[in-house]
Amino acid sequence: MNCCNEKSVIALPAGEKLCKNHFIDYFESKVFKTIRQFDLIGKDENLGVALSGGKDSLTVLHLLKKLSKQNQKIKINAIAIDEGISGYRDKTLEKAKEFCNENNIKLHIFSYKEEFGLTLDEMLKILNAKPCTICGIFRRYLLNKKSRELKLTKLATGHNLDDECQSILMNQFKNNIEASARLGPKVGLIQDGKFVQRIKPLYLCTEKEVTAYAFMNGLLDDFAECPNASQSFRAQVRDMLNDFENKFPGTKYSIVNSFLQILPLLKQKFKHEIIKVCARCNEPSANELCNACVYLEKLRKSILEVR
Amino acid sequence: MNCCNEKSVIALPAGEKLCKNHFIDYFESKVFKTIRQFDLIGKDENLGVALSGGKDSLTVLHLLKKLSKQNQKIKINAIAIDEGISGYRDKTLEKAKEFCNENNIKLHIFSYKEEFGLTLDEMLKILNAKPCTICGIFRRYLLNKKSRELKLTKLATGHNLDDECQSILMNQFKNNIEASARLGPKVGLIQDGKFVQRIKPLYLCTEKEVTAYAFMNGLLDDFAECPNASQSFRAQVRDMLNDFENKFPGTKYSIVNSFLQILPLLKQKFKHEIIKVCARCNEPSANELCNACVYLEKLRKSILEVR
Repeated sequence: MNCCNEKSVIALPAGEKLCKNHFIDYFESKVFKTIRQFDLIGKDENLGVALSGGKDSLTVLHLLKKLSKQNQKIKINAIAIDEGISGYRDKTLEKAKEFCNENNIKLHIFSYKEEFGLTLDEMLKILNAKPCTICGIFRRYLLNKKSRELKLTKLATGHNLDDECQSILMNQFKNNIEASARLGPKVGLIQDGKFVQRIKPLYLCTEKEVTAYAFMNGLLDDFAECPNASQSFRAQVRDMLNDFENKFPGTKYSIVNSFLQILPLLKQKFKHEIIKVCARCNEPSANELCNACVYLEKLRKSILEVR
Repeated sequence: MNCCNEKSVIALPAGEKLCKNHFIDYFESKVFKTIRQFDLIGKDENLGVALSGGKDSLTVLHLLKKLSKQNQKIKINAIAIDEGISGYRDKTLEKAKEFCNENNIKLHIFSYKEEFGLTLDEMLKILNAKPCTICGIFRRYLLNKKSRELKLTKLATGHNLDDECQSILMNQFKNNIEASARLGPKVGLIQDGKFVQRIKPLYLCTEKEVTAYAFMNGLLDDFAECPNASQSFRAQVRDMLNDFENKFPGTKYSIVNSFLQILPLLKQKFKHEIIKVCARCNEPSANELCNACVYLEKLRKSILEVR
């Protein structure tokens, strides 16, 4: 069924076909409804947006900038992390700088090299570990620490419905259900002084929808996927989910909607896992040492052995 | 790693390779441990086994018969349902009769034709519905009603780890999470007078393990799959899970172990869905009319229209 007489550009899982203008309306309404439904943003906020320069984070920044124009009490800042991934991150950072310049948004860039002494590429030559694991630990570490230092009230990320579905199934397939208690559209309690609450405005938007919206607004990146991502477990779960979504439209919504029904139960069950602080760096940690300090120690030892 | 010097016949997900005798020990220990762990069988029981004549139900019957030889207070009965699936069920019923004869087990057979007036094949010519849906509704209806009439204390089914994994994901993929509250190794409260508790002794055994055990004990059927099953949603989920299990051994255990962590929460959340009784047949039902009566009514109407 078509929305109107204009040429349709996208089909929704329920079968409706939308033209460009109706799709943009649909997409923006969905994001702003998600923000209200899950109480993601208050009336007075100093928001951060974790900006990679990719389509998802640019879309979030674009939409939150719109919101801030309507409400002067909502301030927007962008934070980018330069992990040091040769031939990839430099391009995405260029896109991020360009966008922030054009839209008059303050962009803060922090690099692994400056903060930890090594780029991700250099770390991976030393450590025997999965690239996405290492990269994620240090990125989340820096994003939280810098958000707090910048006195941001919340940090918005570009996670979409596909990302969430993948994480839900990955945790199930690896019997790591307590990690799922830390998923959802809003992560972290605002009361935890050390932990800046993270929000996901694209929580109910599929990858396909975000791609279409980004394309229509000139936000689509033309970089290849991160060189470390292709063979990951996540990529295999992603391909499987895309296959099911093609055969059974609506599968991804169903997975996330099922999850939203059990998320409060999971949060209740695993609430005893109180966030402590790392004995070394004083940042939030589930154990005595945080994961970043554990890997930094491994890196130090390996470098000393080589010397 | 091999268990001993004998030729190995099966590899477990953790990598261990077992010879025939060690595998039989491993499998039987696992089933009896499952029975203890989930408190499936008490000291004094009049047990039913839902027998299709396939490898899973024959394996359950074979093992529970062993148990009953050790404990005189555990009585074993078999119940088979003849749905009326031409060229398929007749063969499996022969196997069921043969096994029960040889092992001195009382076998009760109930047919759709006799109980409802039509075979499944005849129903499917009239109803516009998925074969497995219709078949499941009437089979569960008869199994429960006849178990209660036979004064069985519990009804054991052949569901294995693969079946449970598939059901968990199918419910998630169709946003039907409350149906998952009725999964698990033991289903139904013993207090519900109308509902005979169902138990799954093969809950932690993979399809591959059950097949191997059945083969080694002459319990393996050589019939083709049910003619209605091949294109079902379940079959697609099954193939996907087998693919992941091949690439990432242990995936199925992880899914079920994750599920067992949230199952008590689901049971708690959906406990308000008290089982009522059907206004027409007085059997347990979630709605005013039970699903069997709803479909019987559809069948009656269609037949009257034709006449």
